Amino acid sequence: MRLCKTIEEIRSLINAVRAEGKTVGLVPTMGYLHQGHLSLVQEARRRCEVLVVSIFVNPTQFGPHEDYQTYPRDLQRDAGLLAGAGVDAVFAPEAAEMYPAGFSSYVDVSGVSQCLCGASRPGHFRGVATVVSKLFNIVRPDMAFFGQKDFQQVLVIKRMVEDLNMSVQIIDVPIVREEDGLALSSRNVYLSPEERSAALVLHRSLNLALDLVRSGERDTNRLKERIIKEITSEPLADIDYVEIRSLPHLSGLAELSGRALLALAVRFGKTRLIDNVVLEA
Amino acid sequence: MRLCKTIEEIRSLINAVRAEGKTVGLVPTMGYLHQGHLSLVQEARRRCEVLVVSIFVNPTQFGPHEDYQTYPRDLQRDAGLLAGAGVDAVFAPEAAEMYPAGFSSYVDVSGVSQCLCGASRPGHFRGVATVVSKLFNIVRPDMAFFGQKDFQQVLVIKRMVEDLNMSVQIIDVPIVREEDGLALSSRNVYLSPEERSAALVLHRSLNLALDLVRSGERDTNRLKERIIKEITSEPLADIDYVEIRSLPHLSGLAELSGRALLALAVRFGKTRLIDNVVLEA
Repeated sequence: MRLCKTIEEIRSLINAVRAEGKTVGLVPTMGYLHQGHLSLVQEARRRCEVLVVSIFVNPTQFGPHEDYQTYPRDLQRDAGLLAGAGVDAVFAPEAAEMYPAGFSSYVDVSGVSQCLCGASRPGHFRGVATVVSKLFNIVRPDMAFFGQKDFQQVLVIKRMVEDLNMSVQIIDVPIVREEDGLALSSRNVYLSPEERSAALVLHRSLNLALDLVRSGERDTNRLKERIIKEITSEPLADIDYVEIRSLPHLSGLAELSGRALLALAVRFGKTRLIDNVVLEA
Repeated sequence: MRLCKTIEEIRSLINAVRAEGKTVGLVPTMGYLHQGHLSLVQEARRRCEVLVVSIFVNPTQFGPHEDYQTYPRDLQRDAGLLAGAGVDAVFAPEAAEMYPAGFSSYVDVSGVSQCLCGASRPGHFRGVATVVSKLFNIVRPDMAFFGQKDFQQVLVIKRMVEDLNMSVQIIDVPIVREEDGLALSSRNVYLSPEERSAALVLHRSLNLALDLVRSGERDTNRLKERIIKEITSEPLADIDYVEIRSLPHLSGLAELSGRALLALAVRFGKTRLIDNVVLEA
């Protein structure tokens, strides 16, 4: 496995494998890898001849008061996991390599990026779309793999790829959960044991919603009320948002019909966690 | 010469020539071609094995009160000129092919796009950067050719290519002028004979500036005053801006030293013309 720190290094590697006509897969990550990332890697390994994983804690997708500085990093451990998973190359640039002085171009996706996490984290999806555009232009993958835990991110990237005519297929992969239901996230390491235990309310409330829909509930306001009641029953939980939105446009929705996204963001202490499930009416 | 109206057609053509390992050049235009465009085509023909010219009057780079509807169009004449110039393919999509319903992704270049035409035409360079990104992703050229008449546009596109790591070399080609000095522009057809004659003041004022700099003038305010005086001596001229800016960042500049851009935009009746020259102190 090659570890590339510069754009020039990864480009010359990609040029060489492209010349052999091989298909290239990219798994963009911010590192501090868990089984969720590794499920993306497995899917990519299965589908592509050459597999690149990027590890880059992208400053432009963090707000000024968010956790960019403290976001967990462990490149050595990540590289070990990826070598074991059959990855061909890791692209792990420094921030100054991706954003040199004078940098001033951004990709903005409106519409689908404006609600949910886009409303709570202004500029977040602009940072995501920009860095993903850069990674696509650097690696020129045939396929790129993203986790459904960031469901809105997947929608934003699919929209961008379609609108800007990027030649890459976006493949989204299901959420991986701990045995007790907590969705895997690099940010889970922030949680105290009490917060970790309180955070199980997220999965519990998603399951409650699935049960209610199965029993025939179609009114999204009543569904949201029940979910909010469930989450607020947990004293350590502080709700950022609980929303039910249409797919794929994320419009507001009074009545469930067809597929819809139930998405939530909740703080436990200083840690903001997200989770979601697709409801089918 | 192939005429492609859809993204799929031009893509399959490009895939075929890419498979043969040929280099591809792109000349993006809005059509209604003149000798300025043809000088881009000649330069591209000289440098690339396969030459694509796009003809697309891009709605997103026009403001709501600008001349999108009336912008001159003549695809048949353009196609004849390009076939004669040895072009391999023309990509001439309809607006709905490039911007289908739901389109919502844009490329924004700040800094260099905010002054001059960016200040007079809000959103203009966002539209330019977006459509050029799309064209680059569709055609995947090795080189793309732009005219120096839109000097700021060249700087915006170079900035975007560098920031977003696009694999394309941007080549800019000198302004082509009529014998009497008027810079070629598709918009020149809007001019009445009186306006056409009045518009010569643009080239005259650029030459005046060059003379003044040659005689040792370095104070940009005094230079601008002299140019404004020259232009306003022409009763049909209505100044939008006259500016002297640093290169390549287009910062304000009190004193000339090294290379700087003198750029101007002036209305003659309903027609807004731009012109520029690089000053060297």
